[in-house]
Amino acid sequence: MRGIGDLNALAEPLVISIDAMGGDHGPSVVIPGVARSRKLIMGNVRFLLHGDSAMLTEAVARAGVAGISEIRHAESVIAMDAKPAHAMRRGKGSSMWNAVESVRAGEAAAAVSAGNTGALMAISRLVLRMAGNLDRPALVANWPTLRGITAVLDVGANIVCDAERLTEFAVMGGAYHRAVYHSSRPSVGLLNVGTEHDKGHEEVKGADRLLRGGEFDFEYLGFVEGDDIAKGTADVIVTDGFTGNIALKTAEGLARFFRAQLRQTFTTSLSGKAGALLARRPLTEMAARLDPGSINGGPFLGLNGIVVKSHGGADAGGIATAIRLAADLGAGDFAGEIGRHLARMAPAAEPAREIVA
Amino acid sequence: MRGIGDLNALAEPLVISIDAMGGDHGPSVVIPGVARSRKLIMGNVRFLLHGDSAMLTEAVARAGVAGISEIRHAESVIAMDAKPAHAMRRGKGSSMWNAVESVRAGEAAAAVSAGNTGALMAISRLVLRMAGNLDRPALVANWPTLRGITAVLDVGANIVCDAERLTEFAVMGGAYHRAVYHSSRPSVGLLNVGTEHDKGHEEVKGADRLLRGGEFDFEYLGFVEGDDIAKGTADVIVTDGFTGNIALKTAEGLARFFRAQLRQTFTTSLSGKAGALLARRPLTEMAARLDPGSINGGPFLGLNGIVVKSHGGADAGGIATAIRLAADLGAGDFAGEIGRHLARMAPAAEPAREIVA
Repeated sequence: MRGIGDLNALAEPLVISIDAMGGDHGPSVVIPGVARSRKLIMGNVRFLLHGDSAMLTEAVARAGVAGISEIRHAESVIAMDAKPAHAMRRGKGSSMWNAVESVRAGEAAAAVSAGNTGALMAISRLVLRMAGNLDRPALVANWPTLRGITAVLDVGANIVCDAERLTEFAVMGGAYHRAVYHSSRPSVGLLNVGTEHDKGHEEVKGADRLLRGGEFDFEYLGFVEGDDIAKGTADVIVTDGFTGNIALKTAEGLARFFRAQLRQTFTTSLSGKAGALLARRPLTEMAARLDPGSINGGPFLGLNGIVVKSHGGADAGGIATAIRLAADLGAGDFAGEIGRHLARMAPAAEPAREIVA
Repeated sequence: MRGIGDLNALAEPLVISIDAMGGDHGPSVVIPGVARSRKLIMGNVRFLLHGDSAMLTEAVARAGVAGISEIRHAESVIAMDAKPAHAMRRGKGSSMWNAVESVRAGEAAAAVSAGNTGALMAISRLVLRMAGNLDRPALVANWPTLRGITAVLDVGANIVCDAERLTEFAVMGGAYHRAVYHSSRPSVGLLNVGTEHDKGHEEVKGADRLLRGGEFDFEYLGFVEGDDIAKGTADVIVTDGFTGNIALKTAEGLARFFRAQLRQTFTTSLSGKAGALLARRPLTEMAARLDPGSINGGPFLGLNGIVVKSHGGADAGGIATAIRLAADLGAGDFAGEIGRHLARMAPAAEPAREIVA
């Protein structure tokens, strides 16, 4: 199923497996999201919808997607606040587990869930296993910038990362950017507190040496700083999961702060209200550009299969965006590409260490 | 001079030492900044202005601050791109060095410079020395939030921090918040990737144990996440210099991104332009609230003396804000308070480790 990019397979529909019960709103948002995703995906696509069959039958009929969907009944749902360990032990037969299992069994090219992040990662590792010698998947954020979208990873799955792990993120991030944004040679930056060689801790300095010494299918830019993320300096920005998670959540907090400032500006005075009324269309367009839903969905990289995590609070438009991302990744030979580059990485990097040391 | 908060000393003017040549614009902005700071500072204040005497005599006369200023000629200026090691070896006699030296000699209660950050830190360590067993100063950012200002530290001076160092930041940050924002018992949060006890790496978990076990003059809130910064969840947020620097610069980049979006919204369409014209006053007020100058100035904490770093690109209003901050810190027994708390920290924290281990 993952070879669907082959010419022979083009006539077959791409199958996406959906955790239809996941997220803050469940099927009432996920199924309309499935319907909306049809407009975003080029080509033939079908859906495996995992969840409560009675609820899903009704939602599917209402959304008009019965013709392209197959409902798979699941007995249980993983709670949004479930502990990952609990989800691993008790999750079998849940809509989330079964959505990932469809990918393992080769029935679907990719899975999408808006459920509990930790549970989805734990179940995905258990069911799909990690590729090569990787220990844990990396989680990617698609970050809107002045120049487009930058893929930032890891944003929370790997709290402590050595130089080799950061180098693997660069390889996986590069492959991800090629698969989703069709860049021929993406640029990759390593997040640090300055751009000079002697800046930062041992892990980033070590990763910088490995990335300078290796031969990769991306352009390595060296160190970048925090403000380079929103500037769009690089297509891919690599960091450890601790720093990446804090940078991402700091940005989410700041976005809410700006929205609050803007709302206050346009609601507390008469001239502000009048201005907002007059500029309604450009303000609405700006709100749409800044809407997190328009960039919703981040995949776990490094698994033997494709799993996309949607924001739990995503609306139907956000779910549709996450499904399109899964389709983009599922249609290409994404997992194979990552595997080939990781296999090439170790020997290519060895001589570089000797030169530098 | 640092005992100026004493009743006997209240009649004496508070003396602030200024690197008048520092920053992107030098005396043409720094001296007007000195003039503007007079309106922000309650009480009697005088300035020692270090720099080229010919340039300063003219600037001081133009700004009308001759009566409260004493010009101290300095032979040289530290370049904005100078390496810290070079500044330490060759910086003696520069306007920056002499501004810090005035604090060491007890002639001034605090120094302010808009010059090179690394050079200012290196010269301050060399001239003033660190308090107690501290290794390097911590740099504080005053972060605007939905509830006021949160002090975030360290934002770049200490790249690798163990649990003890993070705990010291909490003590210094608490003392800083009391001195500047006059809070009786500031709240302190430890930045992490989640709020549960088992989240994060060993250093933050260790600091969490020390902070729970010790007795401090602040309210320890436990772990906070990136979005808690702009939310204003805590008065003080503690993190290592790597994460803090990246969070701060990520926020600066995002702020520029938002301003670009806003500008585009209000300039590319006729209705946008008309709306901006109508809502000019509230928009200008919002711009002022978001102006980095209005929160300019971050001190180095942990030195035997007070040094405030202003942003290099600050305008006169920004310089004035940094000078007011120096005056607030200089008027209180800030350094003494930090020293007493650090001395108390170690014995208070020991039993906690035993209980937890």
